[in-house]
Amino acid sequence: MIKVFGHTAPDTDSTGSPLIWAWYLNEVRNTPAQALLQGEPNTEAAWMLSRWNLDKPEIFSDVAAGDQCVIVDTNNPGELPASINDADVIEIIDHHMLAGGIKTRAPINITIRPLACTATIMHDLIGDDMARMPEGIKGAMLTCILSDTLEFRSPTTTAHDRAVAEKLAGELGVNVSEYAAEMFAAKSDVSAFSEEELLRMDSKEYELGGKQLRVSVLETTAPQVLLDRKDALLAAMPTVAAADGADQVLLFVVDILNEQATLLVPNDYVKQVAEKSFGVSVQGDTVVLPGVMSRKKQIIPVLAV
Amino acid sequence: MIKVFGHTAPDTDSTGSPLIWAWYLNEVRNTPAQALLQGEPNTEAAWMLSRWNLDKPEIFSDVAAGDQCVIVDTNNPGELPASINDADVIEIIDHHMLAGGIKTRAPINITIRPLACTATIMHDLIGDDMARMPEGIKGAMLTCILSDTLEFRSPTTTAHDRAVAEKLAGELGVNVSEYAAEMFAAKSDVSAFSEEELLRMDSKEYELGGKQLRVSVLETTAPQVLLDRKDALLAAMPTVAAADGADQVLLFVVDILNEQATLLVPNDYVKQVAEKSFGVSVQGDTVVLPGVMSRKKQIIPVLAV
Repeated sequence: MIKVFGHTAPDTDSTGSPLIWAWYLNEVRNTPAQALLQGEPNTEAAWMLSRWNLDKPEIFSDVAAGDQCVIVDTNNPGELPASINDADVIEIIDHHMLAGGIKTRAPINITIRPLACTATIMHDLIGDDMARMPEGIKGAMLTCILSDTLEFRSPTTTAHDRAVAEKLAGELGVNVSEYAAEMFAAKSDVSAFSEEELLRMDSKEYELGGKQLRVSVLETTAPQVLLDRKDALLAAMPTVAAADGADQVLLFVVDILNEQATLLVPNDYVKQVAEKSFGVSVQGDTVVLPGVMSRKKQIIPVLAV
Repeated sequence: MIKVFGHTAPDTDSTGSPLIWAWYLNEVRNTPAQALLQGEPNTEAAWMLSRWNLDKPEIFSDVAAGDQCVIVDTNNPGELPASINDADVIEIIDHHMLAGGIKTRAPINITIRPLACTATIMHDLIGDDMARMPEGIKGAMLTCILSDTLEFRSPTTTAHDRAVAEKLAGELGVNVSEYAAEMFAAKSDVSAFSEEELLRMDSKEYELGGKQLRVSVLETTAPQVLLDRKDALLAAMPTVAAADGADQVLLFVVDILNEQATLLVPNDYVKQVAEKSFGVSVQGDTVVLPGVMSRKKQIIPVLAV
């Protein structure tokens, strides 16, 4: 049984893409495969599962030597099971920069494309067999693309991501803007989470000038709900940083509809990073960054200190 | 101008694939690109250039920060220019195991497939635009596939490599067995090379039990020509190993037509490796390994000490 999984702290693409690829392996390639999750899916991903009547993939914690694995939506060992380099990785499908830590013992299929979404790459790899895809898996594919592109607002969006999503929506009879509004409402409903959970919900590690940063993003259509918890979020940052072996937490609250991010500024170090990276002047403990929506395209590449 | 290049000590695939992809970028994608070589092509690759009236790509030694590069037929930093991680690698097309040393700063196109030949992968990526490919580039593509598959004899050969080569041969009006015989005669003409050059001609570094090995292969239709130079080859091994920072040189003379390899056995260490890896009993300073033709499939995976 091939194990198909994405990154830790599964978002919609890391929940949907394993389901898409496990379907493809099982039904098209006649190769037994199982979608798995490294942790609970986020609220948007959970909404997707319920909306399309998909079973939640089993949650697992590590792989064993010899396990056949397909890695999707990441290639970063820091976001993968601890024993990943002992397992038998047979395929990687991803849309992130090459992190450089995965090795294989033989040539395998690796498909990395600078597209907004893993599911878009899978659409292309599946090709004519898309005709056999059931509605639920197609719905997952559409949701992944709308999630990763923030309904085509993110600068990571390519014309191809958009074309695939619009084709799928047409086939499913889904109105994209109404559907995306429901998705984003689900993603924005974070009332059940503690501040510590919010800081880790969509977070990548990044080294900057010798310091280890947790670069966290919360995409929402209701930023005020999060900003109302600002003091508690600021207070939780040192705890989360210490527990996770990081020096600082940068939290960007991304306002999907107004296409801007608000960075929380807990201290002079983050103030300096904000001013150097984004050319802004920071007053107080938040700063608004107009147009900033993508960690991959607009945050990580410009971070400076 | 995008630089397109393969590995050091360029063989046919690492000479032909840069030409194929530079043609594709220039003529199909309208993106200026230049094929380059890390050293003189081997005799088979030189024969290919002459046979199809292709200009020999310029030889270069390093890349500079900011150079846009497409890496083909390798992903191993040990086979790439020293400054590769300072350059701007924009694409990788390869059929080797993931070595794990290349990092990128953004998502790029990476296509690795467990096929016999990089040129086969390019055939698939080029798709319908194959119709626009000129005869010379098509000839290079055919030569790469016949070279890497040893005219479909190597166990790395897939049905797809074979189908693509046969399609190309049909379009070019080339008789595959006559053509391959000419290619292999060119590859087998190594009279101009010193023993040191022969030991480095088609060589990969490999670590085994803490020792650094140079695993060298010479594919030939005239093995006796090489075996007649056995004493000089054995004598050159310590010099090459010392100069290249290796502990041992393993030289496999692959007899293409009889589908076997002869391993030279300079000392007890190599004797032990041969016996443990291939289950043979070694008498004297050579051992014949029936059926062994592929370093990737039949040598590297079984090496033991």
